[in-house]
Amino acid sequence: MYISKSFIPILKNTPSEAKIKSHQLMLRVGMIKQSSAGIYSWLPLGFKVMKKIEKIVREEQNKIGAQEILMPTIQSSEIWKESGRYEDYGEEMLRIKDRQDREMLYGPTNEELVTDIFRSSVKSYKSLPQLLYHIQWKFRDEIRPRFGIMRCREFYMKDAYSFDINDEEAFFSYNKFFLSYLKTFKRLNLTAIPMAADTGPIGGNLSHEFIILAETGESKIYTDKRIFDLDSEGTKLEKKSLEDLRKKYDQFYSVTDEKFDKDEFEKKVSEKNRLQTKGIEVGHIFYFGDKYSKPMGGSVDLPGGKKDFVKMGSYGVGVSRLVGAIIEAKYDEKNEVMKWPISVAPYDIAIIPVMSKNDNSTLEKANNIYLELNKYNLSAIIDDTDENFSSKIKKMNLIGAPYQIIIGKQTDGDLLEFKEVGNDSQNLKLKDIINIIIEQKAKN
Amino acid sequence: MYISKSFIPILKNTPSEAKIKSHQLMLRVGMIKQSSAGIYSWLPLGFKVMKKIEKIVREEQNKIGAQEILMPTIQSSEIWKESGRYEDYGEEMLRIKDRQDREMLYGPTNEELVTDIFRSSVKSYKSLPQLLYHIQWKFRDEIRPRFGIMRCREFYMKDAYSFDINDEEAFFSYNKFFLSYLKTFKRLNLTAIPMAADTGPIGGNLSHEFIILAETGESKIYTDKRIFDLDSEGTKLEKKSLEDLRKKYDQFYSVTDEKFDKDEFEKKVSEKNRLQTKGIEVGHIFYFGDKYSKPMGGSVDLPGGKKDFVKMGSYGVGVSRLVGAIIEAKYDEKNEVMKWPISVAPYDIAIIPVMSKNDNSTLEKANNIYLELNKYNLSAIIDDTDENFSSKIKKMNLIGAPYQIIIGKQTDGDLLEFKEVGNDSQNLKLKDIINIIIEQKAKN
Repeated sequence: MYISKSFIPILKNTPSEAKIKSHQLMLRVGMIKQSSAGIYSWLPLGFKVMKKIEKIVREEQNKIGAQEILMPTIQSSEIWKESGRYEDYGEEMLRIKDRQDREMLYGPTNEELVTDIFRSSVKSYKSLPQLLYHIQWKFRDEIRPRFGIMRCREFYMKDAYSFDINDEEAFFSYNKFFLSYLKTFKRLNLTAIPMAADTGPIGGNLSHEFIILAETGESKIYTDKRIFDLDSEGTKLEKKSLEDLRKKYDQFYSVTDEKFDKDEFEKKVSEKNRLQTKGIEVGHIFYFGDKYSKPMGGSVDLPGGKKDFVKMGSYGVGVSRLVGAIIEAKYDEKNEVMKWPISVAPYDIAIIPVMSKNDNSTLEKANNIYLELNKYNLSAIIDDTDENFSSKIKKMNLIGAPYQIIIGKQTDGDLLEFKEVGNDSQNLKLKDIINIIIEQKAKN
Repeated sequence: MYISKSFIPILKNTPSEAKIKSHQLMLRVGMIKQSSAGIYSWLPLGFKVMKKIEKIVREEQNKIGAQEILMPTIQSSEIWKESGRYEDYGEEMLRIKDRQDREMLYGPTNEELVTDIFRSSVKSYKSLPQLLYHIQWKFRDEIRPRFGIMRCREFYMKDAYSFDINDEEAFFSYNKFFLSYLKTFKRLNLTAIPMAADTGPIGGNLSHEFIILAETGESKIYTDKRIFDLDSEGTKLEKKSLEDLRKKYDQFYSVTDEKFDKDEFEKKVSEKNRLQTKGIEVGHIFYFGDKYSKPMGGSVDLPGGKKDFVKMGSYGVGVSRLVGAIIEAKYDEKNEVMKWPISVAPYDIAIIPVMSKNDNSTLEKANNIYLELNKYNLSAIIDDTDENFSSKIKKMNLIGAPYQIIIGKQTDGDLLEFKEVGNDSQNLKLKDIINIIIEQKAKN
């Protein structure tokens, strides 16, 4: 695709209202446009990244056997009255009266609605476990929306819900999501650490936040540095293997602000391993037993003939927020260079022909390369404008395709100037360039 | 996937509140669940179909060069006051006050918001044409929602917008969408006829509805039967070729109720070609020039140095509604048989083992077939329940995978009982079955 035909409205300078680098870059390079306070439109560049994140989140949910559904954005107040949260939720809930004067609301989360679906559909323990998820817009009427899509009002989120017959099975489900989240964030090239966390308005007594380190984060965190060396390699989707994974992580102190206890921290973590910093929450999982199933009557028949309320958990990933979180983690604002992880990059590669008047030869070469890349399902953007070389490079460094091919007049024969953003350029054949990118994509 | 593990809550009988067959089938087979008046959750079976429709719609938009964006569901009233539609729109607009007492609304359509995006992003005729689309939830606060997802309040829709420098270019854009819609509906295995239509609250003077015939439709239509023999075969994405396509369709009388003129109908259509029936609107395209760009200041610099307001059109496809429309067109309610077009089927094939106590052999065969199908990316559902054969067939006929493999005890050796729903069964090798399905999928 030619950049001149793409809807990528790039700004000369960083807008002054943006205080953190994700907000700055996203406005600068036309990924989003604010439509009203805390509400954004996603323009093609931002949309592409968000869709790729969504796809990875979806694939990892499917891998643990979760089934996708789609609940509406507008809910009735009735079910929230059943659970007792309608009054509690406060002003962050966007409350709406429809034309018949019914009390409705824009869903900030879906525990009630999914419990309602469950109770009218599942009657027997034989149909358990059930893992249901959806990816849908949600609304929280923040009093002071800020930081662009990081703390906005309308946001895109994956939320999943598990239904089990008893605590043991419910912990198994919980651990499946624990694994799934580690894998999801790894594919996004993020180091997200699970931290014991408060359950807040969702309720329950077991909860982990998944947090990535960032100076601009709003969560204070306290960890044992060694937790960063762990990963989920080799974990199987089996009870024992998942329990071992949980134990491996639980052995290291790692909590958010609300759970922090100074004495405990200093007792459990030797001084050289202590890390006290800030982070961004990108996922949050909860186990809350029958908190919703009991008041709402979500029960199943047990083997012996009795009934019991199902044990539930809920599991959230901020899909739109992750776009910002990745920028916070990867954007080198000093040099104005963004390099998207290949798994979510808006384009795999940028083709930058150095243009001169009355000579289309570099653009023609660019077109041919574009077509060849297409054959291998590699997406490319061509800078076909007549801007000078350095502003082209500057622009492409902001757009953030992780690879670049530069076509100057001296480009001749088979060798192309190829650059992985942040590295030195090298001269390679197109075939070799294609192989490098395909190989990187396959890893994610 | 085993049906016992799938979240497909099937009802024994058709719910009495459902008056048309799409609503009946969708409730019966657990594709949707009502959450409040005119608002539905999509359960896995319905969700799968809707996602496949969405994918086809998206691909056909991309093919004509439209770029995907995503506008939010909640909009500010400000832009609607600029265009003058805020008061006009009436009670179908869901109006909301946020916690700061700002007037917001749930978007019923997006002409204003997309014009706002355009005017702040595009300054020069050189960046035209621009075709932007998004697929997003919308809300119309119907006073009497009915017919399930066919006339509901929260619905999923693709809406596209074109921006051009003058009428000639704008008609070119209009015709691209005209072609794109014919191709989209064809891939969905629907015969959708373009009909001259009123523009209603969108405005403008050129408009086509795309309508499929159905007794339960709410649109009255009057056509020359010969229009059903036309197709878009051979049309190229070029001005002349698209104009020829339009002419080909325009030569036959074909209008909705509001445009109907009895004398004209009888004059232009010979008696044997007259068709007067009902249909379902599945798409609607509009050309309205500067109706929004003028009041909202959406202008570009022209070659000579002057400025002019851009000429716009808008183009909608009801993605969630299409799920119902396909059922209205394809469901044989008398025999309770649904056969989804392979392009949108929730599963490609159903595997139905005849089970008996203490004998797992048919289920084992089913599992092996399932794994083999998986290798070819064919999705299957296995009925692993111990229900009797006829209720299994009945259930699978409702779920609507277009193909079935039946595994009885006599199934032996290489030959399997294979059935295309609605046809007689035949004995085929699995390899041949796979080839048949792959071939059918490739056509769509």
